[in-house]
Amino acid sequence: MTSSFFPPQRTLMGPGPSDVSPRVLGALSRPTIGHLDPLFVQLMDEIKGLLQYVFQTSNGLTIPVSAPGSAGMEACFVNLVSPGDTVIVCQNGVFGGRMKENVERCGATAIMVEDDWGQPVSVAKVEAAFAAHPEASTLAFVHAETSTGARSDVAALCALAKANNALSIVDTVTSLGGIELKVDEWGADAVYSGTQKCLSCIPGISPVTFSPAAVERIQNREHKVQSWFLDMQLVMGYWGPNAKRAYHHTAPVNDLYALHESLVMLQEEGLENAHARHLRNHKALVAGLEAMGLSMAVAEEHRLPQLNAVNIPDGVDDAEVRSALLQDFNLEIGAGLGALAGKTWRIGLMGHASSERNVLACLTALEAVLGRQGAAITTGAALPAAKAQLKG
Amino acid sequence: MTSSFFPPQRTLMGPGPSDVSPRVLGALSRPTIGHLDPLFVQLMDEIKGLLQYVFQTSNGLTIPVSAPGSAGMEACFVNLVSPGDTVIVCQNGVFGGRMKENVERCGATAIMVEDDWGQPVSVAKVEAAFAAHPEASTLAFVHAETSTGARSDVAALCALAKANNALSIVDTVTSLGGIELKVDEWGADAVYSGTQKCLSCIPGISPVTFSPAAVERIQNREHKVQSWFLDMQLVMGYWGPNAKRAYHHTAPVNDLYALHESLVMLQEEGLENAHARHLRNHKALVAGLEAMGLSMAVAEEHRLPQLNAVNIPDGVDDAEVRSALLQDFNLEIGAGLGALAGKTWRIGLMGHASSERNVLACLTALEAVLGRQGAAITTGAALPAAKAQLKG
Repeated sequence: MTSSFFPPQRTLMGPGPSDVSPRVLGALSRPTIGHLDPLFVQLMDEIKGLLQYVFQTSNGLTIPVSAPGSAGMEACFVNLVSPGDTVIVCQNGVFGGRMKENVERCGATAIMVEDDWGQPVSVAKVEAAFAAHPEASTLAFVHAETSTGARSDVAALCALAKANNALSIVDTVTSLGGIELKVDEWGADAVYSGTQKCLSCIPGISPVTFSPAAVERIQNREHKVQSWFLDMQLVMGYWGPNAKRAYHHTAPVNDLYALHESLVMLQEEGLENAHARHLRNHKALVAGLEAMGLSMAVAEEHRLPQLNAVNIPDGVDDAEVRSALLQDFNLEIGAGLGALAGKTWRIGLMGHASSERNVLACLTALEAVLGRQGAAITTGAALPAAKAQLKG
Repeated sequence: MTSSFFPPQRTLMGPGPSDVSPRVLGALSRPTIGHLDPLFVQLMDEIKGLLQYVFQTSNGLTIPVSAPGSAGMEACFVNLVSPGDTVIVCQNGVFGGRMKENVERCGATAIMVEDDWGQPVSVAKVEAAFAAHPEASTLAFVHAETSTGARSDVAALCALAKANNALSIVDTVTSLGGIELKVDEWGADAVYSGTQKCLSCIPGISPVTFSPAAVERIQNREHKVQSWFLDMQLVMGYWGPNAKRAYHHTAPVNDLYALHESLVMLQEEGLENAHARHLRNHKALVAGLEAMGLSMAVAEEHRLPQLNAVNIPDGVDDAEVRSALLQDFNLEIGAGLGALAGKTWRIGLMGHASSERNVLACLTALEAVLGRQGAAITTGAALPAAKAQLKG
């Protein structure tokens, strides 16, 4: 017989999921009601309004897809891309590669714009790609690369798309709620995110928003969207503006309670305050890590405050350190991904997990574990440096 | 400012979501851990084992898809069907139509076998369809039609598929946990279900299982699966037998805590006992409804105990009755769907909601509301009839 599962209380400072607030967990376990209940329909409207606030958009089609961020990505591609299309895809980490897969599975051609991992997407290279491929109808890129911790310039890239009569698809999985994101002002057309990063919510839902131009393209498609589950023409009947709330699929009711609560919390704090908190804790963490003698993998001007890629010092066993942090300190940090596997750690300071307490706990634990491994680090300097930064 | 959302405590006796046990809601809100945490990997193995038990299968590829049942359906179709294929699709309710949509979006041809709504799938018609279409490589049908409450013969239909060298795709969204389902013994190849019906779990996850023959077809595909998110060749790297637990997407960690707990509860009760409970409460409900003067929409031999389609008596306002049940009794029952909209109600007795308490509460509430509407019903007879049936 299998017994009930009781997870330990970890501190989640990896690339996501991040720590979920007790308020959100409390909302999650409220009694389930039906997905067509009038009170649930009211909740849906509130979620749409709150998502419009965090995305900084007035897009009518702003909803949570009932599946993780990867499905949100797929929702953007299968709805906007048709067979035979040309899509410029920027790759400066793992997730650009996943975008390429999506484009090709839609029967379209991906023109790849490659940048080194840890670098932002090069606006000049994208400009050159549009010049070489005037037929390109879509530009796709990642705002905050979760695999490297680098930030790209959404405003400049979306302006380039517009200037070339293309629509933009923007991955904001790790950016939403953690750094500035202005969907309308920057002119992004199809934007997807995840709940398990800076929204401090449980994993499993993907907020998306589509501009009027994106909706127009969806409505004028000649080729049916290849996914029934993600077909926005159908989903709009349940979630869309002026929708009749026609049954499409059973909404993940409790997960949406949790998303609602996490968005209410973000609204209470205020977006700008949340961004400032992410930045403050990031600076303290970096001050501590550098005082310890560690170095950051991404240049200062491109760093994401919510995802800190740290170079693994020579002679240190990557997996052993992460395992010791988990076993002895209940602290999860992330491994490097793809080209950076074994070379970096990814320390997340996302949402509820972006706190002074976590910065200090992480520095303490890391210093202890690296010390045990005999790494060439400076001891006793990290905490004072972080605290000084927090005071300053 | 938007405030926190506090749902009322409804009794969910519609077509799903059904009532979620407090034990499951408790598990749902336990602290989130990472999707690559060794303890989470252990949980994943336990979920696979428990799903093998409820599906009655030894299939290695038996996993929860990270999205609702509609995505589980799509996972079966996009992995098993390739462009140019011929698929025999049985339609005796809403969900056969959705299967047709899936087939066509895969670039394949759907040969429709139609039966009246409320009737089971005709084995003879399927046999004729195979004779007329020897090129058909897949047969798809619904075990328990949620839109009508009728049960079809999985064993006979899967045997027909096998005899014609075709694989079978079986929708068990409403059957799993509520009535007998023997995946291996009956020879079903790709089977999907949902968490929000007879598993008494929250909505949002879709258990699926693939036979060795189905896995072989997936591994030998020449055309890439059109969905990256649902591509079982990739998902197997995280969930599959002997998987390296390679990151594919972020698993919905808390939802899987809930699924695990609901499966543990089902294992504790025992599948046969759960089936017997569903049948006992169904018979009591029917006895009460008939004593009240109402009639069932499906012939006795094809009825699903977990989903009771009741003919709406003449002169009664469908929507008003359902609204009064919800407002005055916090009781949700389901409307008719598709061809049965306005003609039937669907009263669910699924999972945790299949209880004596709910049978009696539903009969009491329905009698009160129908009485107020001046419907021609017999009053005072329903409860004694239901209780007599429960005692017998």
